[in-house]
Amino acid sequence: MDSKPNAIVAQSGGPTAVINSSACGVIEEAMSCGKIGKVFGATNGILGVLKEELFDISAEKPETIEGLKQTPAAAIGSCRYKLKSLEDSRGDYERILDVFKAHDIHYFFYAGGNDSMDTADKVNKLAAESGQSLVCMGVPKTVDNDLACTDHCPGYGSVAKYVATCAMEAGRDTEALYTHDTCTILEVMGRNAGWIAAATGLAHRSPEDAPHLIYVPEAAFSFDKLVSDVKEVLKELGMVFIVAGEGLKDESGNYVTTATGAFSKDSFGHIQLGGVGDMLKAVIEKEVGIKARFNKLGTNQRSAMHCASLTDVNEAYMCGRAAVKAAVAGENGKMVTLVREEGPEYKCRTGLAELSDVANGEKKVPKEYINDRGNGVTEAMLDYVRPLVMGEAPVRMGADGLPVFMRFERRALQKKLAAYM
Amino acid sequence: MDSKPNAIVAQSGGPTAVINSSACGVIEEAMSCGKIGKVFGATNGILGVLKEELFDISAEKPETIEGLKQTPAAAIGSCRYKLKSLEDSRGDYERILDVFKAHDIHYFFYAGGNDSMDTADKVNKLAAESGQSLVCMGVPKTVDNDLACTDHCPGYGSVAKYVATCAMEAGRDTEALYTHDTCTILEVMGRNAGWIAAATGLAHRSPEDAPHLIYVPEAAFSFDKLVSDVKEVLKELGMVFIVAGEGLKDESGNYVTTATGAFSKDSFGHIQLGGVGDMLKAVIEKEVGIKARFNKLGTNQRSAMHCASLTDVNEAYMCGRAAVKAAVAGENGKMVTLVREEGPEYKCRTGLAELSDVANGEKKVPKEYINDRGNGVTEAMLDYVRPLVMGEAPVRMGADGLPVFMRFERRALQKKLAAYM
Repeated sequence: MDSKPNAIVAQSGGPTAVINSSACGVIEEAMSCGKIGKVFGATNGILGVLKEELFDISAEKPETIEGLKQTPAAAIGSCRYKLKSLEDSRGDYERILDVFKAHDIHYFFYAGGNDSMDTADKVNKLAAESGQSLVCMGVPKTVDNDLACTDHCPGYGSVAKYVATCAMEAGRDTEALYTHDTCTILEVMGRNAGWIAAATGLAHRSPEDAPHLIYVPEAAFSFDKLVSDVKEVLKELGMVFIVAGEGLKDESGNYVTTATGAFSKDSFGHIQLGGVGDMLKAVIEKEVGIKARFNKLGTNQRSAMHCASLTDVNEAYMCGRAAVKAAVAGENGKMVTLVREEGPEYKCRTGLAELSDVANGEKKVPKEYINDRGNGVTEAMLDYVRPLVMGEAPVRMGADGLPVFMRFERRALQKKLAAYM
Repeated sequence: MDSKPNAIVAQSGGPTAVINSSACGVIEEAMSCGKIGKVFGATNGILGVLKEELFDISAEKPETIEGLKQTPAAAIGSCRYKLKSLEDSRGDYERILDVFKAHDIHYFFYAGGNDSMDTADKVNKLAAESGQSLVCMGVPKTVDNDLACTDHCPGYGSVAKYVATCAMEAGRDTEALYTHDTCTILEVMGRNAGWIAAATGLAHRSPEDAPHLIYVPEAAFSFDKLVSDVKEVLKELGMVFIVAGEGLKDESGNYVTTATGAFSKDSFGHIQLGGVGDMLKAVIEKEVGIKARFNKLGTNQRSAMHCASLTDVNEAYMCGRAAVKAAVAGENGKMVTLVREEGPEYKCRTGLAELSDVANGEKKVPKEYINDRGNGVTEAMLDYVRPLVMGEAPVRMGADGLPVFMRFERRALQKKLAAYM
């Protein structure tokens, strides 16, 4: 009989190319540290705990676990379930602790964004209150790169590499058909923070290289400004390539896609159509009088394993291991952070931050990373993001010329955890 | 003084990941065959000839020319200029022959689709009529894969590899957040032919793998069918991943994005918004009552050099060389074709077809490649496309972790050839 306590690893929020690398780090360290018994996966994050949908990851084949590093999205399953306050959702929190007790879970490793850190924090506090032995550690994850207390987030380097590559490539497409004024818009993710859009500045190595204009939610956006920016670039280059974060806001902080109402309703009257790409295209075609087109990478940008950053994969893995190392060394209630060391060469180590500090914080693109005109990024931004996209993550290719991703044998696809949604 | 006649190489239509590989093949063969003097690039296709915007590609550095194989889109510049009949555009055709004469051009290599083959054919016929020595050869190019007389088109294998990879990856994203019925739509190119959408069938290796539904323009589409298909997949899997070609048509052959008019006008009343992805999302949200999202890869799919098929790159290059070899061997008025040899192993060689046969033909996805229900593809389709995506094209990476693409030193970006548009 194994007397060592067990651990749960779970994933939450929007998937990334490397959240599974973090899981791999947690699992491998937990299985080799000698202080943890079994490692369970909680299917679909905290929902899997609530529903007691656990599976024994430590019984999976080693190559399956190793394959996590080359598999995008969340192999354990993710969720968007936000627990309310301890007062309002006490039943949920107690249920979580009961499930932990039933499976002798003393360690809970939760990879996610600030909502997940909030959940982990509250579970941890309730456990302490009720005298239940529990260590809750957070592993940072978000393509949006908006977590407080960490230099950057695992997931961001890969999406940055992919969207910058996409801007380069679609930029060449725009340039190729450059026989008259022409416009391409690349819509990227980032509802509140413009880190993803800003990263495409890496592609702009020379004046003709895309993107020529970059709009982020942190800089107040107006359609008048857009039209005048576009006209100016067209005068100079005869073409314009625009990157727009999906959450552009006007001076009052309202999303421009909903502010005017122009495109917010379809003919049924209640479904919001399209987004920023759509809207910019329509405005440019009408006000500038040129043909515009838009690409919307959508969930492909956060799952682009085939173009992931090796730096990002390695750091994500390092964060997973660090969470376990810290936990078994006696830390509790912390999220692993990435700390960029001083010096000319990029070096990154892990640190720790209080879960509650991460839960309540948010990191936006700072003013000094955005140019004065609010339509591009500065060298400081490029210096920040450049090291994060370095290196190409290996991808195992199948005999059919396409990537091979893993699935856990023991995780059944759980249809409808909707009782909790 | 060099008494050997000169050649022009030009590119036309929508760019691809490998049209530059074809150009590389033309240039390298032309420069080494001993029968051709200089090789000029015509900036932006036939427009460059009309405007006499030529540049001496044979004077470019060899590494620039070699770099064409790793550069997406059209490095010489492309155009969408369609010459009318000889009667209606005689001035244009005569101008072309005059420019050819002025620069001692005896060989014209044109990479493009059927409109470009039509142009090359007409130029050739007028030259013959007027006794001007000219050899016009076509090099096939189109991501749409809809050219007649050839087994497949350079450009298609790469877009197929990319969209199948994207379906795999975004499919994992859909699966990760699989806590309630959920839907992702991937909109891909293909206004009249569904080859690109059909290729994503490669990603569906197991029942849960995306895509679960594939709609192509060749199969009559209806929203009733969509809703019932979606409900059926949801019942089975609890999630649904749909790939839709942008040119879906109803039973009468009308585009569904314009047929109903529901989404065809914005609030200005005259600009068509969005496309199939938008529309399917709205219908599914309303009629099925689940959240749906769509990704629209747009021009990123045809320029995705970072995920190009090595088979495609090599065949594109082979087509370029074959065009020159055939031309100097005495062929004229032909397009190079790809001929798939019989036998269990994939082997492909080049052949030749009359330009006029290609110009007037079109190849759609045949019935036997589409399943009976019109919502997926058959094994025959997969057998057809599988060899075309094999191998990964090398991409030179820069010190900044992003691809390095080439530009010709001698080609100035030509702002506004709009006089001819």
